Amino acid sequence: MIGPPVEALQRRHDALGRRLASVPVDVLVVSHRPNIGYLSHFFGSAGYLVFAPGHLTLISDSRYASVLEGLARQIPVIEAEIVWPGTVSTEERLAETLAGTEARRIGFEPSALTVSEFEGLKRRCADRRGDIEWVPVADAVEDLRVVKDGAELHVIREAGRRLSDVSKCIIPNVLAGISERELAAVIEFELRRKGFDRAAFDTIVASGPNAAVPHHRAGDRVLADGDLVVVDFGGVLREYSVDMTRTVTVGRPTARQQVCWDTVAAAQRAAFARSQAGVAADDVDGAARAVFETAGVGEAFGHGLGHGLGLEVHERPRLSRRRAGLEGEAIAAGMVFTLEPGIYFPGWGGVRIEDDVVVTESGPEWLTEPVT
Amino acid sequence: MIGPPVEALQRRHDALGRRLASVPVDVLVVSHRPNIGYLSHFFGSAGYLVFAPGHLTLISDSRYASVLEGLARQIPVIEAEIVWPGTVSTEERLAETLAGTEARRIGFEPSALTVSEFEGLKRRCADRRGDIEWVPVADAVEDLRVVKDGAELHVIREAGRRLSDVSKCIIPNVLAGISERELAAVIEFELRRKGFDRAAFDTIVASGPNAAVPHHRAGDRVLADGDLVVVDFGGVLREYSVDMTRTVTVGRPTARQQVCWDTVAAAQRAAFARSQAGVAADDVDGAARAVFETAGVGEAFGHGLGHGLGLEVHERPRLSRRRAGLEGEAIAAGMVFTLEPGIYFPGWGGVRIEDDVVVTESGPEWLTEPVT
Repeated sequence: MIGPPVEALQRRHDALGRRLASVPVDVLVVSHRPNIGYLSHFFGSAGYLVFAPGHLTLISDSRYASVLEGLARQIPVIEAEIVWPGTVSTEERLAETLAGTEARRIGFEPSALTVSEFEGLKRRCADRRGDIEWVPVADAVEDLRVVKDGAELHVIREAGRRLSDVSKCIIPNVLAGISERELAAVIEFELRRKGFDRAAFDTIVASGPNAAVPHHRAGDRVLADGDLVVVDFGGVLREYSVDMTRTVTVGRPTARQQVCWDTVAAAQRAAFARSQAGVAADDVDGAARAVFETAGVGEAFGHGLGHGLGLEVHERPRLSRRRAGLEGEAIAAGMVFTLEPGIYFPGWGGVRIEDDVVVTESGPEWLTEPVT
Repeated sequence: MIGPPVEALQRRHDALGRRLASVPVDVLVVSHRPNIGYLSHFFGSAGYLVFAPGHLTLISDSRYASVLEGLARQIPVIEAEIVWPGTVSTEERLAETLAGTEARRIGFEPSALTVSEFEGLKRRCADRRGDIEWVPVADAVEDLRVVKDGAELHVIREAGRRLSDVSKCIIPNVLAGISERELAAVIEFELRRKGFDRAAFDTIVASGPNAAVPHHRAGDRVLADGDLVVVDFGGVLREYSVDMTRTVTVGRPTARQQVCWDTVAAAQRAAFARSQAGVAADDVDGAARAVFETAGVGEAFGHGLGHGLGLEVHERPRLSRRRAGLEGEAIAAGMVFTLEPGIYFPGWGGVRIEDDVVVTESGPEWLTEPVT
């Protein structure tokens, strides 16, 4: 099996079982795909996982028959329910499965079912059994996923090394005459060549004045001498995402460009030093923000410092400006996140530098090769 | 403005207004992004549209300030609500906007709000006004989108031409020694070079025995002489998706490979001929299915014939096998969809051929250049 060893899955199941006992619910319907994958190593595009302590039922359609059968063979607690064409829908099979359990209190993920899906599920179950109580259980699996285990870190470290390799194709291609779109194409080609399964998101190439526009992607603008170019790209390796940004100039940087770049780099170093277990995530953001404020450009840092990485390219922890009355998450050993300070000046351009870190018991560690 | 002329938007608004009057609801909260884009030409990654006949309120955060302001200037019925940092959330602003209307019956899209989002919206509105009745309104905008207007067809035709150009890079690259992943990278590079904003989905390259696996994407397998190779790719141009599949052999096809290919091509031609306004979508699928059944390979065609294309890469109409007791959608002039028959033999390989069509009053018309 490509994926975490069975023992790692077992530890995840035990932790989730304890959490569900405290709600309490008898079973949890897992519908968020990264959560299904985390618990079962099934990453198909459709399906449900019914989680009960010691017994997981994985439901998907016949396209995934061999995958499901393989998982059920290798992971003793998993039972596969394959929905064959011309029988029922996956949703109908889910209701049958739930009705066939003794479960009375059934948990569901309120952020991973639409109103339509939830109403349909309730109706289908009510047709079969009248005694079900539906309990929203938010973040039960996400709370586990925020701290990575050894199997996950193994993949993420490898992904970080490969992304650093990809970044080496940027400098030789940042040339006057190439369009943003072409440069994005080169980087996505290189991601594939380095073994990533796909880009983690649409590659951003923001050049010249576009570098000041935080939502810019990659357009027809052709790079010109003197431009600042923000290149933000990421890859997915065996389901795990890594993410990186480099800002380079076409030709020699001007004094102002160099000062901006040095300031952003200093902010990133300050944030890295503060990325310690026990520190509030807000305070890591604050360490970068303080560098910008001292330099008199605090207003130009209009977004948060970073975000968690894992089975999703944006997940917890969220590193952002402290908000009145809201206690941010605390950094813990095993968390993986981006540090991506940036400053933007409308009409002129911007600079952002992004690398990925993992926090260990003995401090932060770069997952991508920092330029600073 | 890049996008549909104001008159086209006006016609969409009028049609939606008539639909909402028949429910009836006073306003509709539009949260499905393609629907927001269809009504306002706003395609940002976050936001809501509050639709009332003659008055649309577009709510998003400050990253999109200049985009929203531009739209509000150009489209008289649109009002922009920009959420600035350090104020409230977009969700809070939505509730304020709704509470500030006279609307008592408020429609929402039940497939485009999660249970959490809907509960949050109800709670925030109830804090402000006690007299709101929430009405699920399914498919109101989707029902309009299924028939494309002139502004949409203009973009889709252009996208189809460009995708046909992209397909020309396949044959010279289907060579023994290239990996599936590398071939996918070449195609996605070519998509960008031909001006697509992004791939419409992860490019599929399924070679040899992988060609028999419908959910295969693109892996490390290296193409070898004699392989059948299924290449399925799509691009997004100005928000509209097109989609194509080619199956080629590495080297000269065997007699069995050629027969399979010819049969799939014949099935596609039969389906094209049947793609007429007024015909049931199921019957278009049936035309292809009949060709396979006559050839004795009906069982090998395990998926539906095709799907609609537009602001989403999978949308209505759905062309699939007739299901007992379910009347499928009828084809109408202005519908755009794929015709992608395929047959698959586990262990041996498979063949799929996919092109896009638009149905006009005078019959079907290819949007991509068919190989058949």
